[in-house]
Amino acid sequence: MTDAPFDSLTGFRAALSRLPAPDAAAFDAAAARNAALAKPPGALGRLEDIALWYAGWAGSARPQLHRPQVIVFAGNHGVTAREVSAFPSEVTAQMVVNFEAGGAAINQLARTFGARIDVHALDLARPTADFTQGAAMEEDDLLTALRVGWEAVDPGAGLIVAGEMGIGNTTAAAAMAAALFGGNPRDWVGRGTGVDDAGLGRKAAAVAAGLACHRGHLLDPIEVLRRLGGREIAAMAGAIAAARVARIPVLLDGFICTAAAAVLERLSPGALDHALAGHCSDEPGHGRLLAALGKEPLLQMGLRLGEGTGAALAIGLVQGALACHSGMATFDEARVSTG
Amino acid sequence: MTDAPFDSLTGFRAALSRLPAPDAAAFDAAAARNAALAKPPGALGRLEDIALWYAGWAGSARPQLHRPQVIVFAGNHGVTAREVSAFPSEVTAQMVVNFEAGGAAINQLARTFGARIDVHALDLARPTADFTQGAAMEEDDLLTALRVGWEAVDPGAGLIVAGEMGIGNTTAAAAMAAALFGGNPRDWVGRGTGVDDAGLGRKAAAVAAGLACHRGHLLDPIEVLRRLGGREIAAMAGAIAAARVARIPVLLDGFICTAAAAVLERLSPGALDHALAGHCSDEPGHGRLLAALGKEPLLQMGLRLGEGTGAALAIGLVQGALACHSGMATFDEARVSTG
Repeated sequence: MTDAPFDSLTGFRAALSRLPAPDAAAFDAAAARNAALAKPPGALGRLEDIALWYAGWAGSARPQLHRPQVIVFAGNHGVTAREVSAFPSEVTAQMVVNFEAGGAAINQLARTFGARIDVHALDLARPTADFTQGAAMEEDDLLTALRVGWEAVDPGAGLIVAGEMGIGNTTAAAAMAAALFGGNPRDWVGRGTGVDDAGLGRKAAAVAAGLACHRGHLLDPIEVLRRLGGREIAAMAGAIAAARVARIPVLLDGFICTAAAAVLERLSPGALDHALAGHCSDEPGHGRLLAALGKEPLLQMGLRLGEGTGAALAIGLVQGALACHSGMATFDEARVSTG
Repeated sequence: MTDAPFDSLTGFRAALSRLPAPDAAAFDAAAARNAALAKPPGALGRLEDIALWYAGWAGSARPQLHRPQVIVFAGNHGVTAREVSAFPSEVTAQMVVNFEAGGAAINQLARTFGARIDVHALDLARPTADFTQGAAMEEDDLLTALRVGWEAVDPGAGLIVAGEMGIGNTTAAAAMAAALFGGNPRDWVGRGTGVDDAGLGRKAAAVAAGLACHRGHLLDPIEVLRRLGGREIAAMAGAIAAARVARIPVLLDGFICTAAAAVLERLSPGALDHALAGHCSDEPGHGRLLAALGKEPLLQMGLRLGEGTGAALAIGLVQGALACHSGMATFDEARVSTG
């Protein structure tokens, strides 16, 4: 992306207050084309919805999917001091090496669906602060992470997937979700990479402690992100926001990605109109969060890995939808009798 | 495929009575590899199940998906005299021309996922008999269709999708499902290509009339296929059976494909162990049929087009699953700390 058009959090808010609409003419032309294709009306189900959604955002009645981009952001979390993860924090940096070597699940899926992959590690040696004790990030830290995300977006990409790696980040996402949408901490925590019952209890306790610590400061979604989130979460929010401003379609990944996205929607309703939910993960808070955002997931495969994997898997569905929409013959072209 | 190893229905039954098991050693080796991959146990959800299933049938602990094959069979149905479809019967032949010209949805999806596509039109000018009045097919007609399906399978294919086109065939599939699994005709009929309420009533009446006409002859699944099915349905059954004998994995498509497959499972339990349900269609009988077969669909996208489209869309999921399984680094290779 070109440089982020903001150098303060106020500037970021302003960028989100002027959101472009999708291209209504392209959408209407795509809908007319869809109605003329040689198939019973509606017979391609959600593939038809995907094609029209994509056409509107891409500004083309007969679009192709060019240059999908997967961006993986990594960050470390001070809340791991609360023993909220089954894995030690050094795994975040080890997995960044694995991403760069092409050995992770997201590398395989990006390759399978022809997507470019970029990896951004955010200050791994300096974890965020433990949010049960104070704000996870200072303002300049948050701003830097938002800018890293914004600038990571390829302006020529036809589709964006933002993924993450960050030991402890399901706890941060649960705290953010509870702050943004209310409910009991236990409704939002899950087993993440595989904690036992005691670990699950520690996660709920950490979320409750975080909400108590920051009480009175959580009405502002940006403050929710700064106080309870993390650098990779802020970077995902920055990337999804940049895509929204550039009208590039987005597939949301799992619980943590969706928590990042939810900040934008709470800040500026309509900020996620360019995004479909790629999947619903096995982390129980994810389904709840998608429901709160009114997003119906495309896939439900029991994934709970993050990295962007669920959304990357859904790239194939978008490719299939656009191939049908843009490649099929119409009733007239195929000389097929209408019903 | 080589010539079908049967020249009578008795021979077909015999071929289905000797079913090979998947490769247990390959399955076990794949399971050991899966456990060593650098990710939390189970974090790839159903992708892990898909990879192990595929490994067992393909006989390889680290398989690649080579040469997926989509085979589309077309047939015409005498039961269309009962006004059970929103489209006229000539659409079957028109769509075959469209398949051959590359203009249908299945052509686009096969291309998207790198699958070869073959089309077999079965005696379109001579529809099956109206099953409310007598058997849809004579024995030699059924045998010919089974053989066409069997021989259509590429012995070098790494995955088979069998799809269909046949105006009126949701009514035939509903009659078969009711005969194989019981229940009220209304439980099994749906709107197909888009009939109205009156059309839906005519479909249920046709199913009821078919069941009444053939009462006492429907305990044998082959007789269900011959009396109530159709040539393209029999050909799909032949193809799925050939894949089973050759241990080639199969993705089941929609209601009609699954009705064809159900004949095999009723004939020889375990005959569908090599098959996953690619999707659940919007035709209401499909979910019921998958539940009766104990198959959990991979996708639920509201498709109701047939042609193999839902299963073809799921090829991408198999590609993703195998790419992760066979391409990811292990904990040791990636030097990632275990939990």
